[in-house]
Amino acid sequence: MTAPLFLRACRGETTERAPLWLMRQAGRYLPEYRQVRAGVSFLELCKTPKLAVEVTLQPIRRFGFDAAILFSDLLVPLEAMGLAVEFTDEGPRLPQPVRTPADLGRLATFDPAARTGFVLETIAGARRELGDTPLIGFAGAPFTVATYAIEGKTSKGFGETKKFFYREPEAAHRLLALIGEATRDYLVAQVRAGAQAVQLFDSWVGVLSAEDFETYALPPTAALVAALRATGVPVIYFGNGAAAILDRVARVGADVYGVDWRLPIDEARARLGGARAVQGNLDPAVLLGPAAEIERRAREIVRRGGKRGHVFNLGHGITPDVPIEAVEALVAAVRSC
Amino acid sequence: MTAPLFLRACRGETTERAPLWLMRQAGRYLPEYRQVRAGVSFLELCKTPKLAVEVTLQPIRRFGFDAAILFSDLLVPLEAMGLAVEFTDEGPRLPQPVRTPADLGRLATFDPAARTGFVLETIAGARRELGDTPLIGFAGAPFTVATYAIEGKTSKGFGETKKFFYREPEAAHRLLALIGEATRDYLVAQVRAGAQAVQLFDSWVGVLSAEDFETYALPPTAALVAALRATGVPVIYFGNGAAAILDRVARVGADVYGVDWRLPIDEARARLGGARAVQGNLDPAVLLGPAAEIERRAREIVRRGGKRGHVFNLGHGITPDVPIEAVEALVAAVRSC
Repeated sequence: MTAPLFLRACRGETTERAPLWLMRQAGRYLPEYRQVRAGVSFLELCKTPKLAVEVTLQPIRRFGFDAAILFSDLLVPLEAMGLAVEFTDEGPRLPQPVRTPADLGRLATFDPAARTGFVLETIAGARRELGDTPLIGFAGAPFTVATYAIEGKTSKGFGETKKFFYREPEAAHRLLALIGEATRDYLVAQVRAGAQAVQLFDSWVGVLSAEDFETYALPPTAALVAALRATGVPVIYFGNGAAAILDRVARVGADVYGVDWRLPIDEARARLGGARAVQGNLDPAVLLGPAAEIERRAREIVRRGGKRGHVFNLGHGITPDVPIEAVEALVAAVRSC
Repeated sequence: MTAPLFLRACRGETTERAPLWLMRQAGRYLPEYRQVRAGVSFLELCKTPKLAVEVTLQPIRRFGFDAAILFSDLLVPLEAMGLAVEFTDEGPRLPQPVRTPADLGRLATFDPAARTGFVLETIAGARRELGDTPLIGFAGAPFTVATYAIEGKTSKGFGETKKFFYREPEAAHRLLALIGEATRDYLVAQVRAGAQAVQLFDSWVGVLSAEDFETYALPPTAALVAALRATGVPVIYFGNGAAAILDRVARVGADVYGVDWRLPIDEARARLGGARAVQGNLDPAVLLGPAAEIERRAREIVRRGGKRGHVFNLGHGITPDVPIEAVEALVAAVRSC
């Protein structure tokens, strides 16, 4: 039996067409998701395996995407490390963020089965339903998770994070290493539970200078990626906003690099030093445009992505205002190439 | 008499040291600014030449920066074009944004003396006080101004802007061209009133793909820059978040390229195709760190910037939480190189 299209592309193989999935494909643009979500809070949904399995499967049923991704949140492991997390209408809030070296004492690695059993159950449950469609596990990359720990919310300027880094560099390195170790345990457990690939989301890494990326973000991320690759599943690193420093990003050592929409995907691949596999990179806002424009841009990405090691995706998560018809047009265009 | 250091660096000349000014140097981090601002609204301050002159001069008096910049706002010319603008605690609001081609009928070029006389008076007044310190005029670049016209506020995802571009490309080009023409008249008037250089702030251009930059942002900006260069003053283009596409940014045709902090400034200059002059590029968040770190990073930028055509600046505006002592440390470090 041939391995699924998605996994072959992740390994840098030549595929008959580009496999396709969308970041945040289980989300608010889907009426069936909004229906489930109407009855429960976001955190309840993440922590109730039956419901999390259901929303993980929804986009597969509707569009037949080539991979499913675990429905969960970047902050789940941070809560398991010991930081209280609340979800408000304005986004996540951590009432007791890390602001001093002493605050690190409140954080620790954790036993994934004991603290995040609901995630592992969701993975096992989704796998039972998915058949041949591979399931992607995920977590935040250490830098991005650290910004939530330090800022206590989704930041704008990331001033607290950088202040902590510059004023307490040793504590910053310890915090990032600790998050990296906890994330390693968490993702290894996801793989054991059935995840067939894992993606690290470095959603905020684009706020760093090349020097700060190399000093703070890269070492714990590269260590984490190396440990995850040892499990045998492909590791995808998505560095949002990092198009300017892809030469440094390549040192993460991932199997697949997710790239945002700033650069054409063939240029991004070249700047990554000819990465074996890339994932992306349609601007999600194109899905707000007319079908002809969606099709034209999707075909251009398929052409530039090439037949070898290209997973089609957006350059960032799909937004709630995208019409279903736009996704249908995208799926049809990518499949027909 | 030798021309001022700042103007010589803008022309790509070799200077004895890098001239220094800071984006948003007349701003809330200064106690004397907060004192003026306590008595008036932000818009009143912009529209009262006596007060606008005062806050323009404050950072020069305190730090002796090598250039002053007009105190004003990006939205002043948009209001003069016909769109109502309000300033709220959450930032600017335009209650009647541009959402359809018909909405363009509400916008027109304007007579700068008639509609923005307060800006020209501020420039003339500041020049009388500034002595040998050159004064920079400024405006938003067409794309960035268009985002405010379309979104009606500072956006996060810029979905409305891109939707307008993709659904109404002809109207989008007309809107961008119209803003470009109005900005040309506005900045030419600033030069006639006494501005010795002009800076275009393309604050949001980093949200565009290379293709969209080339299609939408570049043509009106390049036309505007060419018209402004004909006045004989140096034209600075600051493309925030555009480090990934500096090869395209270079086609703007500016005298000086302001660059954000993502890339070391020598790499940025190389990607710009060896720009004659560059401006930047310390991460403003470094000013939240200890003095030793500020000094180390400032010296590194001076070293990488080289002696030819380098204006020292931040990679983005200074933030209100920066301590005065941090700016003092920065000024001393740059001057001592």
